Amino acid sequence: MFKIHLLVTALAFASSTSVALAQALPAKAPAPANNPTTSQKVALGQILFHDPRMSSSGTVSCASCHNTMLGGEDNRGGSVGVGGQVGGRSAPTVWNAAFNAVQFWDGRAVSLEDQAAGPVTNPIEMGMKNWDDVVKRLKSIKGYEALFEKAFGKNSISKDNATKAIAAYERTLITPNSAFDKYVKGDKKALTGQQIRGMNLAVDIGCTGCHSGPAFNGPGTFQKFPVISNGSIQAQFKLKKDKGLAEVTGKKADEFFWKVPTLRNIALTAPYFHNGKVKTLDRAVKIMAKMQLGKDLSNDEADDIVAFLGALTGEFPKQSMPVLPAYSGKTFN
Amino acid sequence: MFKIHLLVTALAFASSTSVALAQALPAKAPAPANNPTTSQKVALGQILFHDPRMSSSGTVSCASCHNTMLGGEDNRGGSVGVGGQVGGRSAPTVWNAAFNAVQFWDGRAVSLEDQAAGPVTNPIEMGMKNWDDVVKRLKSIKGYEALFEKAFGKNSISKDNATKAIAAYERTLITPNSAFDKYVKGDKKALTGQQIRGMNLAVDIGCTGCHSGPAFNGPGTFQKFPVISNGSIQAQFKLKKDKGLAEVTGKKADEFFWKVPTLRNIALTAPYFHNGKVKTLDRAVKIMAKMQLGKDLSNDEADDIVAFLGALTGEFPKQSMPVLPAYSGKTFN
Repeated sequence: MFKIHLLVTALAFASSTSVALAQALPAKAPAPANNPTTSQKVALGQILFHDPRMSSSGTVSCASCHNTMLGGEDNRGGSVGVGGQVGGRSAPTVWNAAFNAVQFWDGRAVSLEDQAAGPVTNPIEMGMKNWDDVVKRLKSIKGYEALFEKAFGKNSISKDNATKAIAAYERTLITPNSAFDKYVKGDKKALTGQQIRGMNLAVDIGCTGCHSGPAFNGPGTFQKFPVISNGSIQAQFKLKKDKGLAEVTGKKADEFFWKVPTLRNIALTAPYFHNGKVKTLDRAVKIMAKMQLGKDLSNDEADDIVAFLGALTGEFPKQSMPVLPAYSGKTFN
Repeated sequence: MFKIHLLVTALAFASSTSVALAQALPAKAPAPANNPTTSQKVALGQILFHDPRMSSSGTVSCASCHNTMLGGEDNRGGSVGVGGQVGGRSAPTVWNAAFNAVQFWDGRAVSLEDQAAGPVTNPIEMGMKNWDDVVKRLKSIKGYEALFEKAFGKNSISKDNATKAIAAYERTLITPNSAFDKYVKGDKKALTGQQIRGMNLAVDIGCTGCHSGPAFNGPGTFQKFPVISNGSIQAQFKLKKDKGLAEVTGKKADEFFWKVPTLRNIALTAPYFHNGKVKTLDRAVKIMAKMQLGKDLSNDEADDIVAFLGALTGEFPKQSMPVLPAYSGKTFN
């Protein structure tokens, strides 16, 4: 799974605007064969995703860091887990995560199902000791039995089914109809002149080498960052501290390889980069241009690209607030 | 405001079942003259209530401790604020808080508007330095301007209006149609035999001296707890550590006076008492009977009352998930 390091930056100029950027966001995300999406799974998944009792302290839900009322993350550098602990990476957005080929910044999960299992038992995130304890807790909350039964059949509370339900819910978190999508579908007035300038510039300088396709996170899966050395920027934003994929594989060749993140809703997900060290989008755009493509953007050029990126903010689907099944007369601790 | 210490326990036997318990929960809560409820205020209030950027760390919203997807609180003893700090009191439920004569466990706020201002600048809760900073932050999130304008008119982002909007939203958080309400309205099959036994016992032993009226939190506002000394129970549950109203007024006469809490949805809000030291409802019922009324309940009697209290769990209104206004290209820290 970690073999596919497509260094596609060099190919950027080969892709025309139309090829690189002609894809609107699909309205639905494909589900894997072993977890077809059903409304019962989605309903259960929405509840689990928002239930803080999935954490040791009962205070941290998936939504705490991947806020579904906001841009799908927490607008922080490092996210905050149980006991006020701060993580080393910035929470990626859950919106459109269904269109990522791999999950987590280092791409160590190959599916949403895989990903969903991780933070729950991470000691500085949700802090549960193990999934047996999670299952035990879910079983102790009476209403879950019926919800799992609807989604998966009788006596079906398990790690496998909980993560499947969460993944099924996440596949519904899609933000279509951005200004860019409207433009692609033929409404040529959907983008401003500045946004069109920014879009063309992004293609010209090669951003779309890595950030193309409907979610602007392909065609490759991983990319090295930074590609071009710059000691002062690296030091200022601590870009060499976390080795990305290599932290998982231990391989020298994987050092500083990262999942290419989606640019959908990127205007809403400051601060930027895996470590959240860059506070503003214009700064992030300039650093990416310099460190990945060797380009020094002027302020005006960066502003144009920022304007274009703003056109990738989509429509957030109306959701009902889940009602979590309650404990009756007792609690978890 | 702290003068009204109605020691009504002694009056309990004077109130018949019908008088003490004949009141269904109103479908609407009255609003004060200076803050009439409007749909625009409620919409803004729901957003503010769920916005973690109202806290210094951007991680704690009102809903973090007063969870509107659960029983209106966090199922914890002490709630968790910014930086993982744990408070000394258990979060009271926000459901039906509109029917409390005073707010906070020590009753130090006389209105929901008053109450809403407090936790935001409490250093161990939401940790904002002061309300000027809160207002500044709200102004830095572009979408709030339009939301406040709809609710209060142009250039209206202020502490006063933010707390008014939150209070207006809270006045909609009502849980009608519990089994008890149906029973009161004439459906005599709505309660089980055990629940009726528990209800009659609760009246007989005097629970309704303090817990009567539609929200089971009147007729008085404050009550001393514990009334009857019991060194071992007091020590076990640390009942003498926090002096309640006297912590605010500094007056000896106010020691151990507390707001009488609603019993609506009490089955959902474990653990119990101001300090959350009592983990189960049956234990809480026995302690209250012993320490307030001098009664030693049998297990069966306590179970009957617990069954009755379960009949006070209401219907939670369907809510839509608020979409919080986003930062664009930057964040708060």
